[in-house]
Amino acid sequence: MSRILNVLGILLTVLACAQVVPLLADLVAGNPDWMVFAVSSVLTLFLGMSLVLANASNEERITVREGYLLTALAWVILPLCGAAPFLFSVEGLSITDAVFESVSGITTTGSTVLTGLDTLPPGLLLWRSMQQWIGGIGIIVMGVAILPLLRVGGMQLMKTESSDTSDKVLPRAKQVATGIFAVYIVLTLSCAIAYGLAGMTSFDAINHAMTTIATGGFSTHDASFGYFQSGWLPWIAVFFMICGALPFSLYLKAIGRDPMLLIRNSQVRFFLGFCLFVIVLMAFWAWRTMPLSFSEALSQSAFNTISIVTTTGFANADYTLWGSASVVFLIITFAGGCSGSTSGSVKMFRYQLMWSFLKSQVNRLIHPHGVFPVTYDGHDVSSDIVLSVTAFLALYLISWFGLSVALAACGLGFQTSVSAAATALTNVGPGLGPIVGPAGNFSSLDNPEKWLLAGGMLLGRLELFTLFVMITPRFWRDF
Amino acid sequence: MSRILNVLGILLTVLACAQVVPLLADLVAGNPDWMVFAVSSVLTLFLGMSLVLANASNEERITVREGYLLTALAWVILPLCGAAPFLFSVEGLSITDAVFESVSGITTTGSTVLTGLDTLPPGLLLWRSMQQWIGGIGIIVMGVAILPLLRVGGMQLMKTESSDTSDKVLPRAKQVATGIFAVYIVLTLSCAIAYGLAGMTSFDAINHAMTTIATGGFSTHDASFGYFQSGWLPWIAVFFMICGALPFSLYLKAIGRDPMLLIRNSQVRFFLGFCLFVIVLMAFWAWRTMPLSFSEALSQSAFNTISIVTTTGFANADYTLWGSASVVFLIITFAGGCSGSTSGSVKMFRYQLMWSFLKSQVNRLIHPHGVFPVTYDGHDVSSDIVLSVTAFLALYLISWFGLSVALAACGLGFQTSVSAAATALTNVGPGLGPIVGPAGNFSSLDNPEKWLLAGGMLLGRLELFTLFVMITPRFWRDF
Repeated sequence: MSRILNVLGILLTVLACAQVVPLLADLVAGNPDWMVFAVSSVLTLFLGMSLVLANASNEERITVREGYLLTALAWVILPLCGAAPFLFSVEGLSITDAVFESVSGITTTGSTVLTGLDTLPPGLLLWRSMQQWIGGIGIIVMGVAILPLLRVGGMQLMKTESSDTSDKVLPRAKQVATGIFAVYIVLTLSCAIAYGLAGMTSFDAINHAMTTIATGGFSTHDASFGYFQSGWLPWIAVFFMICGALPFSLYLKAIGRDPMLLIRNSQVRFFLGFCLFVIVLMAFWAWRTMPLSFSEALSQSAFNTISIVTTTGFANADYTLWGSASVVFLIITFAGGCSGSTSGSVKMFRYQLMWSFLKSQVNRLIHPHGVFPVTYDGHDVSSDIVLSVTAFLALYLISWFGLSVALAACGLGFQTSVSAAATALTNVGPGLGPIVGPAGNFSSLDNPEKWLLAGGMLLGRLELFTLFVMITPRFWRDF
Repeated sequence: MSRILNVLGILLTVLACAQVVPLLADLVAGNPDWMVFAVSSVLTLFLGMSLVLANASNEERITVREGYLLTALAWVILPLCGAAPFLFSVEGLSITDAVFESVSGITTTGSTVLTGLDTLPPGLLLWRSMQQWIGGIGIIVMGVAILPLLRVGGMQLMKTESSDTSDKVLPRAKQVATGIFAVYIVLTLSCAIAYGLAGMTSFDAINHAMTTIATGGFSTHDASFGYFQSGWLPWIAVFFMICGALPFSLYLKAIGRDPMLLIRNSQVRFFLGFCLFVIVLMAFWAWRTMPLSFSEALSQSAFNTISIVTTTGFANADYTLWGSASVVFLIITFAGGCSGSTSGSVKMFRYQLMWSFLKSQVNRLIHPHGVFPVTYDGHDVSSDIVLSVTAFLALYLISWFGLSVALAACGLGFQTSVSAAATALTNVGPGLGPIVGPAGNFSSLDNPEKWLLAGGMLLGRLELFTLFVMITPRFWRDF
């Protein structure tokens, strides 16, 4: 237990240090908000250091149950501490709004309750983007190092991909994290430079680079990516959103050995193929039904499709005006990128596995005595993993339905309830309709609805089971 | 193969004989429509007898693949033959409409494209009700006798419930069918008498009794069950809709041995508990948010909830006006009654199994080396069956999403597409919104949409896999 508190303390200390960046930005801009960050940073640092010092521990192993607890606590306490700057610097913002914005940031969801972004102080805008950036690297490390050991939702399948079995969670996390962190920084810098060259101001470029690679979707403008009309910017965003949705451990391997590994990976191929299919489909739809040239239709289709499939959530067109096509945008909300990336939602490997599973089931119906193994990436998959994945999908559905009903009970309409629940759980950002759609804003929702959605974001980000195991009495027995 | 055509011939002959009933009704009423039924009956009889005579066969066994083919062919050809009376007697009705109405009848869905029901000739109204009644007994026999052998969607679990293993499908089907048919007739007569005593005309009582026990939902009035304002009628309907949604093989056992078996069955208990929970929830909702007394709210909640959960689809209130609660009505569309009943949708035993499965998965996450078997009705369930059920649920979801997208591509709005796809697949009847909702009518849809929905009804009625296996090349190899 002390090891968990120790790690939490380290994470809080990192968060405190991170707040120095927006502090400096506000100082340079001559904005008095730097004091907010100074106070918030000192308090967070104090809390973090206390936890570290009070819980010194040489134990490098943690148990599976401690793994769950650490993951859940980190993703609850960090957004709470990160909410302080919003609370103190935006006038009239309630605690609910501050926590919602912060949870939406760290879970890389990207739904916002703030309006008038274009006139907010630079420190606060930077803090929003940085929360997503920190949440992005956090989820990759969790996805690569911790979740496979917890065997959540078929993630044990990914264990073999990055390294061999080991229950020394933390040392491995450190080692993997270093390499991945380097890749993450290089990608973010490349994205920022590309944005800058294509015409963004350097402030916009840095902010959007962070929220692009983190597949987060916060923008510095109320119009989101629609603010940028240059022909190249959407395509640069498409490229780097895809980069953020690829398995980061694969980058390490590709750099060390063979760059073509990235293209040869079955999950990556499936992901790119799926994106291409949806983009072409939606481009034709948009071209045929709206007053757009084909290249405009293709650009809007590519940008918005990739933005949702990778769970980023930027918008540069109100696709809810695409009529019936909005159903497609709701459905691809459940796609998600690759495992071990910054993207949320169901993720591609689970669909690949389910596809192989359904094929094997149909074949067994026809030939009851035949042997039809489920395969993934060319290898047979045990029925244990198939069961894990199906349990994950079932729980996803239950959570979606449950959250929809809860939102409806709060008084939201059908489309808003259903799509807001989906977009929160999948960490995408925008839903459908005038309130939660790409042209809307979550600020008009009531407090209970915001708490429900923030809970949904955490639930989705932590792959459901990480939180659901904790509501069972068995989890707490003989802890 | 000749055995299949032989059975199909028998089924068509039965259908031809059934058409004599509306023929007589129209003759008695002095309506010239009796000629339509006479022609249709003779043609169907000719087709049926030709198939029987040309395919005499003493073979009593059929292979698994022949089982699929028989099931699918029966559920495609019977509605086509049953559509003829609609086509020839309703002026201005297109082939699409006639087939839609007939498919909606035989699959016991209950969506209608006919308007002005109150003024239609009695023979035609009777034919609609009889189609549902025939479809109802058909699905019970299929569910009890054929599906368990085909091992579709976990139905093999039900095999042990009614009798031991045997691949002599047809003799067993006959034996089981006789007992079940008797129960079916007794329930229908009881329902008709109860309706009559509570104030329906005898014609209405007979029609509604047939569509109640079949959990079909066709009515003889445009206002559906809302036409009947007597205080007892909705509660009688509630009771008999529940009767239609219980496992019919259990009735046989209960009559032979112990009437309490019906209450002690775990699926029945789960079903009744679930219904009670939803009814109370919705009654409170309706009472608090609408100008209704509590007894009115309870009556409307009970009637409409049971109507949807049992997949009947009668409506006596436009519950889409219940605001946010309409999300609940969409979700319980996916409930369904018990296995081996006339009700469609997912059905209770699959949820019981999934619940036990999710519990075992969560426990295994906490104690990786523990043994936590999935159980149903007190017995351990093999992972094969769990996999079957999860594959079924996955395919259900894919079909729902696919059908929603297809309907949206035809130009329907979000709520209409999503709810119409759901209500067709689950054989419920009404969806949400002004077009397909309980106060709407499917007649205003375009032809492609009607064909898609009719396809969805068949897909749902045949438990998806029965049709999906046929689109694989493997199914047709070396037939």
